[in-house]
Amino acid sequence: MGIQLTILGCHSATPRTNAHPTAQYLKINERHILIDCGEGTQVLLRQHKVPFAKIKHIFISHLHGDHFFGLVGLISTFGLLDRRTELHIYGPKGIKEIITLQLKLSKSWTSFPLLFHELNSTESQIIFEDKKISVTTIPLDHRVYTNGFLFQEKEGQRKLNMENIIHEPEIEICDYHNLKNGKDFTKQDGTVLENDDLTLPPKTAHSYAFCSDTAYKPDIVPIIKGASLLYHESTFLEDKKNLTERTKHSTAKEAGSVAKQAEVHKLILGHYSSRYKDLNQFRLEALTEFENVELAESGKVFII
Amino acid sequence: MGIQLTILGCHSATPRTNAHPTAQYLKINERHILIDCGEGTQVLLRQHKVPFAKIKHIFISHLHGDHFFGLVGLISTFGLLDRRTELHIYGPKGIKEIITLQLKLSKSWTSFPLLFHELNSTESQIIFEDKKISVTTIPLDHRVYTNGFLFQEKEGQRKLNMENIIHEPEIEICDYHNLKNGKDFTKQDGTVLENDDLTLPPKTAHSYAFCSDTAYKPDIVPIIKGASLLYHESTFLEDKKNLTERTKHSTAKEAGSVAKQAEVHKLILGHYSSRYKDLNQFRLEALTEFENVELAESGKVFII
Repeated sequence: MGIQLTILGCHSATPRTNAHPTAQYLKINERHILIDCGEGTQVLLRQHKVPFAKIKHIFISHLHGDHFFGLVGLISTFGLLDRRTELHIYGPKGIKEIITLQLKLSKSWTSFPLLFHELNSTESQIIFEDKKISVTTIPLDHRVYTNGFLFQEKEGQRKLNMENIIHEPEIEICDYHNLKNGKDFTKQDGTVLENDDLTLPPKTAHSYAFCSDTAYKPDIVPIIKGASLLYHESTFLEDKKNLTERTKHSTAKEAGSVAKQAEVHKLILGHYSSRYKDLNQFRLEALTEFENVELAESGKVFII
Repeated sequence: MGIQLTILGCHSATPRTNAHPTAQYLKINERHILIDCGEGTQVLLRQHKVPFAKIKHIFISHLHGDHFFGLVGLISTFGLLDRRTELHIYGPKGIKEIITLQLKLSKSWTSFPLLFHELNSTESQIIFEDKKISVTTIPLDHRVYTNGFLFQEKEGQRKLNMENIIHEPEIEICDYHNLKNGKDFTKQDGTVLENDDLTLPPKTAHSYAFCSDTAYKPDIVPIIKGASLLYHESTFLEDKKNLTERTKHSTAKEAGSVAKQAEVHKLILGHYSSRYKDLNQFRLEALTEFENVELAESGKVFII
């Protein structure tokens, strides 16, 4: 169990020497995930020593270049490295055509199964689920079709409370499985031992909500309610609030407001416009709405 | 007149922190040109302080990712910077579809005229020409359709030899144009003054031949004969000559041999395979064939 989020790039629009476009590496409950993939992401993965061959799922929020222009290069590199493990790409309809056209014209078919899961629903939906995690879309409000993603750990099994079990000789090892799954134990004399007395609660399941790019959209609050960690874009400060309508981006204050309404544990800001030199202004502005705010920066790791 | 070649990236295959894929900025006779555009090229243009807004012509040798994955990002950035000047892209058939599909899906139509010149001929041909320069394809032998490019300065006008002209009072300023264009001058008494006595030769016209990627292909020699500067790929040393057949690349020795046969003035090597740590081995190997060899490296500038 646990979340490890590595920020690779967190700036908007054009890649510059020290301002990389959006990409994040997420390790959650033993699953290795890449979220967005701006130009240069594969170099950042190497720089930050991410074990990127382990990435099996890539989620692309939308088809603006600063969120996906690095994807085809990463896929090609996986091919050059003779990857064999399957790779799943989740993103807006059209992403398959973009990637396969380029692979076709470069005669660079991959050595591994490359599986696309194209999205076009405007309703929140579960798009991936296994024993360890689930991934749910967070429909956002941007100039093109855009989803955020909620990554959730599945709740683990209950843990055996051996201090109590040891006093019940009728309980054998073969009963542990049922106990971990929350079942009570019935003794031969008919006495029922309640599960709560024989087990301890499972480890807390954590969740991470990624929301970029979007205008202020409070109707996502129910989807991300109580998330352990929320990344919410803050392209602007309130001084440029007049630009948010046309560009469909948020201010740091609005990001803070969403975090407050959703009662998340921590807010991470990012997707800063290049017009701002002092990024700490973003944090100060969001702090007026919500108390636990950190700034995304390339190479920063958040661990829960 | 003159050539200024800036190497942006010169490594093969996968971009790494200090090994950028192919891209070169060429200033030739006042024309600003980009040759190939691997992932990350726009960041390198900024790092090396290239006045990249002036680039009006981009030549793409072939559709392998390490030669063009940075193109769509650069075009998008030109759009974000509100470029108005037209941009010409020369490259293999298919390049237009790749770029326009991505611009369409990101709803990012450019603010400037974007003109594609798709190539599919296997014969050498002039693909651009104006008063200052011409550009000729150099058909190469690679795994996909590939062209090198020969960039040639147009020979300028002859220069007035004022020391002699001053002694001929019949020659007036309005005659200078004809003299610069090589015409003789006829005096009123019928005497002909030869142009050679009234003018000096124009400045030397230089040329740059870019040849990447290709197997050893000596039949390009007549096209690049006498070039001032030749960039020829050398992916391998002779120790891996067995790989050149399948991959359609060259060794440094083969690059040296082409330079020697073509009697160019200087050879620049590049497109090194990542298996080699000591790049000077490439130079030493090419020197066994040709005496004037330099290594490409990111940020290096060649001036003629």
